[in-house]
Amino acid sequence: MPILNSWVSSANSHDTDFPLNNLPYGVFSTDENEPRCGVAIGDMIVDVTTLEAEGILQAAEQDVFDVPFWNDFMEEGPAVWASFRASLTAMLAEGSSDQARIEPHLVSMKDATMYLPFAVAEYTDFYAGKHHAINVGTMFRGAENALPPNWLHIPIGYNGRASSVVVSGTDVRRPWGQLKGPDDTVPRFEPCKRFDIELEMGAIVGSFSDGPVTVDTANEMIFGYVILNDWSARDIQAWEYQPLGPFQAKATANTISPWIVTTAALEPFKCDTPEREFELLDHLKDTGPMLYNIDLMATIQPEGADKPSVLCKTNYNYMYYSSAQQLAHHTTAGCPMNVGDLLGSGTISGPEKSTLGSMLEISWGGKEPITLETGETRTFLEDGDTINLTGAAIGDGYRVGFGDCIGTILPAIKKSDWT
Amino acid sequence: MPILNSWVSSANSHDTDFPLNNLPYGVFSTDENEPRCGVAIGDMIVDVTTLEAEGILQAAEQDVFDVPFWNDFMEEGPAVWASFRASLTAMLAEGSSDQARIEPHLVSMKDATMYLPFAVAEYTDFYAGKHHAINVGTMFRGAENALPPNWLHIPIGYNGRASSVVVSGTDVRRPWGQLKGPDDTVPRFEPCKRFDIELEMGAIVGSFSDGPVTVDTANEMIFGYVILNDWSARDIQAWEYQPLGPFQAKATANTISPWIVTTAALEPFKCDTPEREFELLDHLKDTGPMLYNIDLMATIQPEGADKPSVLCKTNYNYMYYSSAQQLAHHTTAGCPMNVGDLLGSGTISGPEKSTLGSMLEISWGGKEPITLETGETRTFLEDGDTINLTGAAIGDGYRVGFGDCIGTILPAIKKSDWT
Repeated sequence: MPILNSWVSSANSHDTDFPLNNLPYGVFSTDENEPRCGVAIGDMIVDVTTLEAEGILQAAEQDVFDVPFWNDFMEEGPAVWASFRASLTAMLAEGSSDQARIEPHLVSMKDATMYLPFAVAEYTDFYAGKHHAINVGTMFRGAENALPPNWLHIPIGYNGRASSVVVSGTDVRRPWGQLKGPDDTVPRFEPCKRFDIELEMGAIVGSFSDGPVTVDTANEMIFGYVILNDWSARDIQAWEYQPLGPFQAKATANTISPWIVTTAALEPFKCDTPEREFELLDHLKDTGPMLYNIDLMATIQPEGADKPSVLCKTNYNYMYYSSAQQLAHHTTAGCPMNVGDLLGSGTISGPEKSTLGSMLEISWGGKEPITLETGETRTFLEDGDTINLTGAAIGDGYRVGFGDCIGTILPAIKKSDWT
Repeated sequence: MPILNSWVSSANSHDTDFPLNNLPYGVFSTDENEPRCGVAIGDMIVDVTTLEAEGILQAAEQDVFDVPFWNDFMEEGPAVWASFRASLTAMLAEGSSDQARIEPHLVSMKDATMYLPFAVAEYTDFYAGKHHAINVGTMFRGAENALPPNWLHIPIGYNGRASSVVVSGTDVRRPWGQLKGPDDTVPRFEPCKRFDIELEMGAIVGSFSDGPVTVDTANEMIFGYVILNDWSARDIQAWEYQPLGPFQAKATANTISPWIVTTAALEPFKCDTPEREFELLDHLKDTGPMLYNIDLMATIQPEGADKPSVLCKTNYNYMYYSSAQQLAHHTTAGCPMNVGDLLGSGTISGPEKSTLGSMLEISWGGKEPITLETGETRTFLEDGDTINLTGAAIGDGYRVGFGDCIGTILPAIKKSDWT
């Protein structure tokens, strides 16, 4: 598919994240207006809350956009998702007769503050990148036990904490935690020394279910995707995670990009999961391409540095399991799924060092410091570091991008400031 | 403290769960009325939604009870919790001049349908009973590795699934899952064969926090308690839980009793946690009695049996960590806590076989079948079994009880009925 041209001229650039082909959904405010629903187009945002209020553009029900989240729209269902997108695409297309009445509802992105685009119902994080699982498994349990026996049969996941999900731009405070090194006799309570990133995609569940669903149904339930940084305290994790899994190591923050890129926009970029070592059981089998070809990049900018340094470049297509397979697995025991559930893909790492999605892997557990483009070195994050995760599916002369997924590390809270 | 007498005569019985000393909070409907807030007194429910609507009884804000959950009331804060309880206690006390205007707002419990008493924000389950941890650890990892090294230093927990929390009386459908025995070469996908109960208490968080809190603050944040049955699929758990913890094994249902028993009602029953083998780090240290002396019992009634059989009798005071310590730990990494968060205590088992809070432990991994009072035997749950968990703090001539926490096992859904 070529680029679709819009009368919003900035949307026709080859390097915007937000051409007419994308139309991602976010929540924004301006000095004049409270948080509301908007759609990105080039360097502008279409205020769909006022478009709806003035009767110019409707979802099926009334007042779907009279709220600062897209959950009510998701609840309208896939038919409305499609018709709304078709209407918006036509209205914003070059030559549209709607230009004059839409133009007053455009806001410049630089004047907008972004919020979480949806109310996060619950958050689940998976562990579905094979290179990452082997790397981390090797460091935590040794090369012989790197890949757990269940890994090639189940998209392993754990429940995370929805209250920890924040939008891009939110500062992230270094966590305290209980730490115990292998040679320590007793644990101590200190600020985390090995604070890390995890470069992930987040899938947003757009439909309810209350029993097991097939992979095909699961695929239809997914509304869209964001980029996700699953900030991870490696030293807290190493001490706490046996036997019930990560808990406080993953509870500080999970940053997401502010725009929900819909599965409709990503449709041209579908691709297959990799070849299987073991055939999956029927209820998890691939039934078609359900993964996406999305280029991803992580950068780090130390406090005072004049530019960011690249940490890694990777691709979502390194995943072993698609989010449809993850969601199908999530429902097997009858777990009810809700509109607004967020599913983290797991860290996305490729086979080469330059494609590893966490500092744990890049610095091999802190043993091989990374030299940044500024000359500084890093093993894990230092206070003042700013991390940005970006990504886009690359089309023919255009990109379907996600915007920034950015966060700056603040020092740990002082013990005297506890309540 | 002796029993407080009420003009509701059934509340003055020695064996009611709901004397005036209790006043637990629930949500109920009748044939005439939609779900609304109510307070149990003897065998009656006080409709506080209509008491508020008619201006007879108020929380601080307007319309706190014009919703089918107690979250808005919790948000009013501890001072309002105390003043509301004091008003209600006075109004329902023997000799109160309010009797005539309260009486029209009493509903018989037998005409009421109960709902979840609060909107569950997020659900966390802990693993804080030492006898249980040693028993399960022995079965899963052998006696040498029974208690994980971190267990005596941290109240170990994992995030569960809020969408799986249901109110007492909800049927529970046997889950499907991926199973693999130690001698199987590949896993298979089948209905769970080792479906189990876990007898727990659930603590309800009544205040927000967005940074680490002390144990004392955590204790003040807890609004009340329910009994909780953490239905557990042991065969799914054994295959899935390494390395990220239980997931679908705990996602089918978590049943809670319908009445929130407040910390105010439980105040006379406070007790200390047991002696420590290792001194806890400062941020987790006990600062006073924060556990409660609550007698608990689990019964099982097979389909067609004419009476239930006792599975175990235990007590909440077997816990190694209090819910205040669990909540303090939950906040260490900066995890935001919200009104309506539910914290499962972990399975409550004592030292004797008759005090074990799960069938896994009672039947020692299925090796020692349990003979019921009806003569039937059980290792794990069979379809049609009804489990009830009950409990009460025992005062001088009265009990502060929780009502039923009951669920019946339905057969697994047919594969052909998947969507």
